[in-house]
Amino acid sequence: MDIRPLGDRVVIKVREEEEMTKSGIVLPGTAKEKPQEGTIVAVGSGEIVDGKKLPLEVKEGDNVIFSKYAGTEVKVGEEEYLILKQNDILAIVEK
Amino acid sequence: MDIRPLGDRVVIKVREEEEMTKSGIVLPGTAKEKPQEGTIVAVGSGEIVDGKKLPLEVKEGDNVIFSKYAGTEVKVGEEEYLILKQNDILAIVEK
Amino acid sequence: MDIRPLGDRVVIKVREEEEMTKSGIVLPGTAKEKPQEGTIVAVGSGEIVDGKKLPLEVKEGDNVIFSKYAGTEVKVGEEEYLILKQNDILAIVEK
Amino acid sequence: MDIRPLGDRVVIKVREEEEMTKSGIVLPGTAKEKPQEGTIVAVGSGEIVDGKKLPLEVKEGDNVIFSKYAGTEVKVGEEEYLILKQNDILAIVEK
Amino acid sequence: MDIRPLGDRVVIKVREEEEMTKSGIVLPGTAKEKPQEGTIVAVGSGEIVDGKKLPLEVKEGDNVIFSKYAGTEVKVGEEEYLILKQNDILAIVEK
Amino acid sequence: MDIRPLGDRVVIKVREEEEMTKSGIVLPGTAKEKPQEGTIVAVGSGEIVDGKKLPLEVKEGDNVIFSKYAGTEVKVGEEEYLILKQNDILAIVEK
Amino acid sequence: MDIRPLGDRVVIKVREEEEMTKSGIVLPGTAKEKPQEGTIVAVGSGEIVDGKKLPLEVKEGDNVIFSKYAGTEVKVGEEEYLILKQNDILAIVEK
Repeated sequence: MDIRPLGDRVVIKVREEEEMTKSGIVLPGTAKEKPQEGTIVAVGSGEIVDGKKLPLEVKEGDNVIFSKYAGTEVKVGEEEYLILKQNDILAIVEK
Repeated sequence: MDIRPLGDRVVIKVREEEEMTKSGIVLPGTAKEKPQEGTIVAVGSGEIVDGKKLPLEVKEGDNVIFSKYAGTEVKVGEEEYLILKQNDILAIVEK
Repeated sequence: MDIRPLGDRVVIKVREEEEMTKSGIVLPGTAKEKPQEGTIVAVGSGEIVDGKKLPLEVKEGDNVIFSKYAGTEVKVGEEEYLILKQNDILAIVEK
Repeated sequence: MDIRPLGDRVVIKVREEEEMTKSGIVLPGTAKEKPQEGTIVAVGSGEIVDGKKLPLEVKEGDNVIFSKYAGTEVKVGEEEYLILKQNDILAIVEK
Repeated sequence: MDIRPLGDRVVIKVREEEEMTKSGIVLPGTAKEKPQEGTIVAVGSGEIVDGKKLPLEVKEGDNVIFSKYAGTEVKVGEEEYLILKQNDILAIVEK
Repeated sequence: MDIRPLGDRVVIKVREEEEMTKSGIVLPGTAKEKPQEGTIVAVGSGEIVDGKKLPLEVKEGDNVIFSKYAGTEVKVGEEEYLILKQNDILAIVEK
Repeated sequence: MDIRPLGDRVVIKVREEEEMTKSGIVLPGTAKEKPQEGTIVAVGSGEIVDGKKLPLEVKEGDNVIFSKYAGTEVKVGEEEYLILKQNDILAIVEK
């Protein structure tokens, strides 16, 4: 991975699920509500709290749920990612 | 439970009560005001206050009252939960 | 009392006074301005200030005046209470 | 005095002055701009600053000027008072 | 001076300059833009920063420039003053 | 480089890419969405956190992604730069 | 210089450049966008951060770029200055 988020930020590969409608037509991801789940691909160096740098609670590979519309979408090469602050992550979901 | 909330967040299974009107018709949960009570199913690792991580005051199994509309609804598998910050919990109610 | 407020919150039983108009008709509580007085029935474990937990200044049984519209109304069993933060309490009134 | 303000709050008896218009008619207090002066009748236990409780700068009996519209009006028995935070007091005026 | 400002506040006697228009007519102070200069007549006991009380940087007699519309106007006896926080003072001007 | 940003600010030379439309016409940078990528040409002396000055995480030469519309555009000589706070930088991208 | 800014403020003599249009007509400063560059003529005693007074990073004579519209314009004698907080200064530019 060639993108290093700063501070308490993480880079997330958002999961885009294909969905089958009842009539069997596949709707691409963009026709759905913005996704709220993804996999962490990079984490920042930590959060500074009261002068001390605390490592983040999440790590690469974690499958997380995050606030809708949180973060900023970026495109690196052909891939699209979401960069958001750890605080916008609600929970880690074990698959 | 396969969902781990971050920091000072908790995961709540909201109680959805069926209600009997005077005429005896059962109104499903959605016809009522948004529920304000639920059971904690998972708690985060704690809240960072002035550089120290304090464990949460609530624990799994607690029956709690929380602010209306607080938190974010998530769906894990077939189940719906509410993820909110401990600070949005008003009180623990003993059954 | 089977309700335990969290942190710097208190549970208050709001005083609802009946009032006699000049013509002698009793006006029920709801016809008046929202009450601002009540009795504390439960207090939280304390307020975290700069990493230390300070016990609350008010205690069970105190008769207090609080900001109009402050707090959240909850119903436990048949009883209605108000849960508010100690900071919304203006003063303790000795009866 | 049977009212004890909490924390950094004070209880003030607002001065309501009668005023003589040029034509000699006395205008009651309510016809004037909201008063800005009063006498402190009770002070709270102090203000918590960075974990330490500092006693208030004002004391019972001080004649003070305060921000217009600051605070909350309360009625204790037949008397009306104003409860406000010390920070809303601008200055102490020596009579 | 019989007025003592609280905390980080100062009392200022605002300078009201008479101005001569080109045609020689004197315009009273009220016809101009609100004044921005004045002399400090009283200073508060200091500002509390991180639990320590720091004395103010300005002192009685200082001629200061302050933010337009900052502060609160008060009338003590026949005199009008402006009470503002030291932070609203921009600079000390040597005459 | 003759421009020294203050504190936690950095100076960025924004990358302006020429783009080829399908019909082969080159669209100059201004016809595109505001760029989000650039190279750091100068960094400030550091960020003050709880009384300690922490050096910045980014350094001269880093290729960074930053929030759209963040910062202030300045022109030094013939060159245009963007000055923004380190906190507006999302991530460092390795080329 | 007879003006001493308070705290973390500085006094700036804004540079007003005459500009030559292509047709050779000189446009006075007021016809341009508000200037963003100037020279520091006085600095305050420092910024209080976490109870410690830190000297400012800029000094008299520095040529600085600052946020458009930041600060307050003052007139001392015949001269016009801008008083702004050090935090509104973006960078020092070496001539």
